[in-house]
Amino acid sequence: MVERKTVEVCYSPNDYPLYKNDHDIVVVIDVLRATSAIVAGIANGLKSIIPVSTLEEAFNYKNEGYIVAAERGGDIVEGFSFGNSPYSFMDPKLKGKSVVLSTTNGTKAINTPENKIVIIAGLVNAKAISKYLLKENKNVLLLASGWRDKFNLEDTICAGAIADELVASGNFTSNEDSSIAAKYLYQSASRNYFGYLKSSSHRRRLKKLNLNEDIKFCLTPNQFDIVPILNGKEIVAL
Amino acid sequence: MVERKTVEVCYSPNDYPLYKNDHDIVVVIDVLRATSAIVAGIANGLKSIIPVSTLEEAFNYKNEGYIVAAERGGDIVEGFSFGNSPYSFMDPKLKGKSVVLSTTNGTKAINTPENKIVIIAGLVNAKAISKYLLKENKNVLLLASGWRDKFNLEDTICAGAIADELVASGNFTSNEDSSIAAKYLYQSASRNYFGYLKSSSHRRRLKKLNLNEDIKFCLTPNQFDIVPILNGKEIVAL
Repeated sequence: MVERKTVEVCYSPNDYPLYKNDHDIVVVIDVLRATSAIVAGIANGLKSIIPVSTLEEAFNYKNEGYIVAAERGGDIVEGFSFGNSPYSFMDPKLKGKSVVLSTTNGTKAINTPENKIVIIAGLVNAKAISKYLLKENKNVLLLASGWRDKFNLEDTICAGAIADELVASGNFTSNEDSSIAAKYLYQSASRNYFGYLKSSSHRRRLKKLNLNEDIKFCLTPNQFDIVPILNGKEIVAL
Repeated sequence: MVERKTVEVCYSPNDYPLYKNDHDIVVVIDVLRATSAIVAGIANGLKSIIPVSTLEEAFNYKNEGYIVAAERGGDIVEGFSFGNSPYSFMDPKLKGKSVVLSTTNGTKAINTPENKIVIIAGLVNAKAISKYLLKENKNVLLLASGWRDKFNLEDTICAGAIADELVASGNFTSNEDSSIAAKYLYQSASRNYFGYLKSSSHRRRLKKLNLNEDIKFCLTPNQFDIVPILNGKEIVAL
């Protein structure tokens, strides 16, 4: 009998220390909107995206002449070119360029793991990620970015979608209850993401900010057949 | 319009600092098995249960002549009278007596909140808890004990059952995604707890220890119309 690899789900960077062993690849998920924007940007020809956790780092890059995007609490931070709307990252003027990005939750999550392969996922490229993970056949942790260290529904559902596909292959198994619950939530949600997430806290938050087009974009699965990977300090296409 | 009270779900004592404000009552849940055993014991005439977090405290009580129950990782700790099987707590010989209890997760969770009303719940008394909370009409946090600080499926489902009933009354609302997900998980699980929890990590753990009777007991809802409350250092019937 071949030993199956594990695929587990961690609900927030705050919980990461509890899950940090026993995996080789970390898949970071921030559906609304950081990782969806990163996937869209890389798929549309950005050279790279440099994720930074603090606004201080973001300002330093700006002073060095970089294009810098920064978001906090759903809003573009004053003094920066744009926030984390996926549409901003698909601007043809950015093709071939590097963009620095700092967001409330996503970039923090991306910079959390140490000495792991770090991959960037959203619902927009979930199938591409599953395909990659099946090929790599290593132990996987799906890391939801959450909301200010708390559990977040749309990230968990995206993690559940990827875990469900890996387990269905027969080559992966999940042992943690967090992973089992994420798969259950995905299975209930997958028929109608919009309805299921209607009451989610972050969707309400973004709706107030008139970001309905962004929400629709981020909840439309499998638009991009691309796997962004963290290479040193930069996210690039695999 | 009357302002509705909030009912939120926290998945583990590790996350409690993120949720510690904005509620007056904390409901502690450890379905397998600490809070189920406490409810069963109090319902069957125990005078009180004294929850202690460490084995050191448990030994100190033992040396003072108390009846002391202690469990770690599903096993009775050597040197103590019993662990956290609900059947041990229903022994008629214990009627009118106080029992000290220390367990892997549950007693730690019970001792986590400060300056709050602390109530003890399991599936075995979920309806009694909902009835009490509806009558009190205060902001509520449902605190799952989890497993070694991680998310736990059966505790979350029990929290979801209580949250679902409070929200259905129209007098309560949930804002956090953790609460929304707990309700979704409860709604899927409620038709068949046994099947739903078949693959849960703790159920597998206890099954290995031949504790199937305990599991059946703990997953049989609404056996007791009782609300245990923490009064100083002791849990007593309300």
